[in-house]
Amino acid sequence: MSQPGGPLSQLRRGHEELVLGLLRKHGPLSRGELGRRCGLSRTTLYDILAELVAAGAVVTASRREAPRGRGRPAETLTLNPEAGQAIGIDFARRGLHVAAVNLAHEIVGSASEPHDANLPWEQRAELAARLVGSLTGGTLNLGALSAIGVGVVGPVGDPDDDSGKGTDGPHPAQVLLRERFGVPVLLDNNTRLAALGEAIWGAAAGVRDVLYLRLSHGVGGGLVVGGSLHRGAYGLSGEFGHITVDQNGARCDCGGAGCLETVASIRAVLDAYRAAGGHSGHAAGVPELAKAARAGDAAALTVLDGVGAHVGGVLAALCNAIGPSVIVVGGELAETGTALTDPIERALRAHVMPVSRHRVSLRRATLGEVAGALGGIALVLHESPLLSRYPAGPDLAKEPQ
Amino acid sequence: MSQPGGPLSQLRRGHEELVLGLLRKHGPLSRGELGRRCGLSRTTLYDILAELVAAGAVVTASRREAPRGRGRPAETLTLNPEAGQAIGIDFARRGLHVAAVNLAHEIVGSASEPHDANLPWEQRAELAARLVGSLTGGTLNLGALSAIGVGVVGPVGDPDDDSGKGTDGPHPAQVLLRERFGVPVLLDNNTRLAALGEAIWGAAAGVRDVLYLRLSHGVGGGLVVGGSLHRGAYGLSGEFGHITVDQNGARCDCGGAGCLETVASIRAVLDAYRAAGGHSGHAAGVPELAKAARAGDAAALTVLDGVGAHVGGVLAALCNAIGPSVIVVGGELAETGTALTDPIERALRAHVMPVSRHRVSLRRATLGEVAGALGGIALVLHESPLLSRYPAGPDLAKEPQ
Repeated sequence: MSQPGGPLSQLRRGHEELVLGLLRKHGPLSRGELGRRCGLSRTTLYDILAELVAAGAVVTASRREAPRGRGRPAETLTLNPEAGQAIGIDFARRGLHVAAVNLAHEIVGSASEPHDANLPWEQRAELAARLVGSLTGGTLNLGALSAIGVGVVGPVGDPDDDSGKGTDGPHPAQVLLRERFGVPVLLDNNTRLAALGEAIWGAAAGVRDVLYLRLSHGVGGGLVVGGSLHRGAYGLSGEFGHITVDQNGARCDCGGAGCLETVASIRAVLDAYRAAGGHSGHAAGVPELAKAARAGDAAALTVLDGVGAHVGGVLAALCNAIGPSVIVVGGELAETGTALTDPIERALRAHVMPVSRHRVSLRRATLGEVAGALGGIALVLHESPLLSRYPAGPDLAKEPQ
Repeated sequence: MSQPGGPLSQLRRGHEELVLGLLRKHGPLSRGELGRRCGLSRTTLYDILAELVAAGAVVTASRREAPRGRGRPAETLTLNPEAGQAIGIDFARRGLHVAAVNLAHEIVGSASEPHDANLPWEQRAELAARLVGSLTGGTLNLGALSAIGVGVVGPVGDPDDDSGKGTDGPHPAQVLLRERFGVPVLLDNNTRLAALGEAIWGAAAGVRDVLYLRLSHGVGGGLVVGGSLHRGAYGLSGEFGHITVDQNGARCDCGGAGCLETVASIRAVLDAYRAAGGHSGHAAGVPELAKAARAGDAAALTVLDGVGAHVGGVLAALCNAIGPSVIVVGGELAETGTALTDPIERALRAHVMPVSRHRVSLRRATLGEVAGALGGIALVLHESPLLSRYPAGPDLAKEPQ
């Protein structure tokens, strides 16, 4: 068999995708109908069908009504809706999120599990395999899996290459998952993948110019620009969290000072809440903060108001520069609701160019914590026009050999 | 004859472009060679060649050496290097810039003329026609002109359309120029066109991710994102001048307050220079300021230092968000040289994410005041991959009928 990722294997996968695409589009088809539509030779088509049937991706059935005046009923081929075609995994800082779609690109399941920020990669990969197993147990057949799309924290992209397609050597997640699943592993920054997920399936589905901001343990985001997900030179776009909001502000993990992340990350917000005497000075999490805000707690509202002003100011600057029509705010902190989004919106409207004031719309993310894993799936399927300027398939990331 | 812009005319123009492209690529070709390469019917090809020859775009010549064993030498066709194929006009706020390229896409000339900011459109169009005439007098044949690309001040794009391709009704410049030249007039924001010019022919030629900032009477810019010029929803990208740099700052023409333009436009900088006692308190222009800065004048240096800090801070924020590999600074104020670019660079390096600090390069624009006109030409030729996501030809802007 040819090397996965090699030219022959890619050609074959292209043929498979063609056949699967026809079945997805037209529903059940006979071998003859498929042959007329796909343009492949009979031998190639039958080979591919045999492999797809063996892998569980395609099932055969007899057509109920035989064509008039013919002999035995034609056997038709149809997608197996329970065969998983794509898996996305988000290796977030403090948790793992997995999602799977079937061959019809319907989301068939997702699973998440929090873990310590220092969990070694071997154990993360094991956890990932377990979560994938929990999705696939009994209901999902991974036989037709063509690749896995993976999100990781931090910049992804070759630091010396501004072509926008190269990357560093294989990431540990790529090496480990490839060992386990035996398929190519595509990689991108997990926040950019969350932006992709929201722009395909979530709050900004179908919008050509989207700015996605995630307020979580880190602050970052992603851009859909003119209908394409934007990667940036060196893979460094979407680092909204490291925009300076206070020249005299606190040191940031990035090495800078006064970055948005120093005032709008989960830790910064909870610290400010505690300092303001919120939750009786005790350690509280985002759910407690959100609850306090909903109850009208003054400390919670004041803190979120200040955060919102910073966030909205940065969003206004980015709107003037980039011109999105929709801004999506996600991450755990977005769960504090209007106590945060109202001040964000106020600062946004106050500082965006007046001509844009009523044109840009601010929306809460809708996909929750699996947005990044869903974005990973999109990377694998590579069917969204949002990915039209992305390198296709395994070329995106150098594959460990 | 079919309507310019109609489907038949577009088909015909497509055929013309095909023939011209072959001649551009292969040099002189006989009718037979052209026929084999272009795939058009003999009748269509001969018709098109006759029109191109009549228009002066293509000239005939005899091939020196007759093919072995044949009769009379074959007549070959070649591009007329003196035929102007494209004109770009930048209707800037206080002046007009015109550039022309020949069929080989070589710049054959450019001309500029300052005028009052209130000059009516009729007179601007007249001035444009005169400048075009001065370029074409004797050396340039406008017969093959297929369209004119025009830059204007302000947003260009349909305010209710986020598809990125619509526009408002025809702009006065479109109506007037079309009357004079009888060809389609394509329109975009002139600063975005200057960004396009710099990214094709100028300081950032060949770079996939470029941020262009123009410091002139207004402050604005343009983005090349992942190898394409970016327009933004509602045509509103690149408004870097209206990013807030001082919440308590001066009112801005846009209706906001404390915008970058209120501290970094020509007027703001000259006002600050005067207030600092520069040029003995007398009115001075940018050339005088630049001269003072080169001579080490303290007032000039202090003012430019402050402007540079603001500009560099904004650029750093945009770098973190968008990830360009090259920043190009143009406009008249860039002519003050390192007295301005050094503080810009310092603030940029101080506030950009440390990981990007040595990856982004800051460059002075190289095309001067004709950058926008050259961008207009690029819009007409529509051959740059930078325009791959732009609507082609006259579809970009609604044509007056």
